[in-house]
Amino acid sequence: MKHALEMARLTIGQTHPNPSVGAIVVKNGRVIGVGTHMKPGEPHAEVFALQQAGDEAEGADIYVTLEPCAHYGKTPPCAKAIIDAGIKKVFAATLDPNPKVAGKGVQWLRDEGIDVEVGLHEEDAIEINKDFMHFMRNKRPYVTIKTAVSLDGKMTANSGDSKWITGEAARRDVHENRHRHDAILVGIETVKHDDPQLTTRLPHGGINPIRIILDTHLSIPFHAKILTDKAVRTIIVCANDASESTEKQLNEIEHIDVLRMPTDEIYLNDLLATLAEDKIMSVYVEGGSKIHSSFIHKQLFDELHVYMAPKLIGGPTSKPFFNQNGFAEVSQSVKLTFESIEQMDDDLKIIAKPKR
Amino acid sequence: MKHALEMARLTIGQTHPNPSVGAIVVKNGRVIGVGTHMKPGEPHAEVFALQQAGDEAEGADIYVTLEPCAHYGKTPPCAKAIIDAGIKKVFAATLDPNPKVAGKGVQWLRDEGIDVEVGLHEEDAIEINKDFMHFMRNKRPYVTIKTAVSLDGKMTANSGDSKWITGEAARRDVHENRHRHDAILVGIETVKHDDPQLTTRLPHGGINPIRIILDTHLSIPFHAKILTDKAVRTIIVCANDASESTEKQLNEIEHIDVLRMPTDEIYLNDLLATLAEDKIMSVYVEGGSKIHSSFIHKQLFDELHVYMAPKLIGGPTSKPFFNQNGFAEVSQSVKLTFESIEQMDDDLKIIAKPKR
Repeated sequence: MKHALEMARLTIGQTHPNPSVGAIVVKNGRVIGVGTHMKPGEPHAEVFALQQAGDEAEGADIYVTLEPCAHYGKTPPCAKAIIDAGIKKVFAATLDPNPKVAGKGVQWLRDEGIDVEVGLHEEDAIEINKDFMHFMRNKRPYVTIKTAVSLDGKMTANSGDSKWITGEAARRDVHENRHRHDAILVGIETVKHDDPQLTTRLPHGGINPIRIILDTHLSIPFHAKILTDKAVRTIIVCANDASESTEKQLNEIEHIDVLRMPTDEIYLNDLLATLAEDKIMSVYVEGGSKIHSSFIHKQLFDELHVYMAPKLIGGPTSKPFFNQNGFAEVSQSVKLTFESIEQMDDDLKIIAKPKR
Repeated sequence: MKHALEMARLTIGQTHPNPSVGAIVVKNGRVIGVGTHMKPGEPHAEVFALQQAGDEAEGADIYVTLEPCAHYGKTPPCAKAIIDAGIKKVFAATLDPNPKVAGKGVQWLRDEGIDVEVGLHEEDAIEINKDFMHFMRNKRPYVTIKTAVSLDGKMTANSGDSKWITGEAARRDVHENRHRHDAILVGIETVKHDDPQLTTRLPHGGINPIRIILDTHLSIPFHAKILTDKAVRTIIVCANDASESTEKQLNEIEHIDVLRMPTDEIYLNDLLATLAEDKIMSVYVEGGSKIHSSFIHKQLFDELHVYMAPKLIGGPTSKPFFNQNGFAEVSQSVKLTFESIEQMDDDLKIIAKPKR
């Protein structure tokens, strides 16, 4: 199962809207087939592994990181392929929360007299598809807030300068994360101030996430890189009183979609629900300070990535990553759990999750 | 040597103004004497170890975590004791930077035909007595800044409330550190706002550090706990224009010493030099925000302990641990190196040092 999980891990970020899955067929202690789901529309992991095993699959065991599917989608159900191949025993790391599957795959296999064991390395399997799992269960994207700060919590120095708080290893890790997310989200202030590309720039390429810009009054400058570069679908979110002529102009740009909310400000909860309808399962929130503060204050995040540099910036006009509103008493603060701390060259990467 | 270092480590904080030292006498692969220096005025580690070994010390080796002393102080020189005992070989982890020793101990032993090897686990030996080493080399106390903050760098919530940012394990660690330091330093605002005791409160006691209060205008309230509790010598530092009658009144309190600086404000560099003359080798700076900012901005610190809680506080009036002055550009920031990151229950303890 560990090898199957490793194979699934390799495809995180490239299977949307499907989960990342790996499968291994084993007979008499010998691996006779391996498979990984590569992208939507292509066969699932089990099918690749069974194809490789061929006739030998008869009487073999299969290890799969997610419950085999039971429905006809773009491809026929994997449960059927397993039954047809004559597999003796199925080890599934975890059940598929997708309501179209959700135990039906396992049931079908058992009905056909196949022995099924669920739960081997389940935690790892859930972690690999945490976005997909979260989305299927909550009908809301998995939200990760990312920030790069000094040890004293500042995103910028007094002048607003932020180049560079963290080093290359941390910045590269951010691009890995862009590749893994369906969408990236920033506020209009970030677009105006930094004119970022918001694309995935890894040494060997990578997938660009959909770009989402929160721009209540549609004040985005038309020379902004994200409007001119045509790199990837870009959603500009505005409130109901934003200029209709600007909306029209923006919608004329091929890769741009304006999303007009029915309210006079952008409510994040509503926005996330709307994005979920669009099958966006994971959102990487890159700032700035105001956007972070809103997501934190409303507790609308599932993970927080803090890249922390061994620097002290201080200063009255430097920007902390969470400065709006805030709490009067320590007891009211947003409680988290530290999940992991990793050294990245000179910097730290701290991953925290809301305490449940 | 590792065991000798472990023995030295046990006495960190209790040997002032002497270093912490451990010694082990070994003959034919068998330990025949162990010794640790316990407190000033008592015999040094080598003497205890040699006493235990008795006549067997003839022809044995001794492992000692610091160069044996060569001068008559409160006790006779250890080098002489080693020579008299007939020791064959001396392993010293590191040289003693005290100008009264500084290689003279090793020289004397070698002159008497004893084989001496210096440098075994030297880094560990220096770390154990980092305060003493730093003090002897720089004639300035070793300064450690301590702060407890939320993940977003806040020492207090909007109301000024700070109880409690971190959990019990972190708070206990602070008391361990008080025990290990010669002095603790806070600003007058902290005294007025929190009325702290600034004593070492560990389950089994502990040594109280000298308390140093920076109080430019001698505005300390006479009901403050540190004035009424008589717990330990307390130095109130003021500028040259502070009230002389208040000074007189304060000096009448038995455990209080007023230190009047010759300038119209307290210059930290001058203060540290004055404290060094008073044989204060290590200072633990506990805050508040203004005091931290001054030490950081002038880069007058050797170590920074950040206890970081998995909380997000935010807010415009919450206090970051470094907020005065600050820097316009990221490139001007104070550069550090992360030395260690440790989990303490739910919190992190991050130790950083200025990048040299």
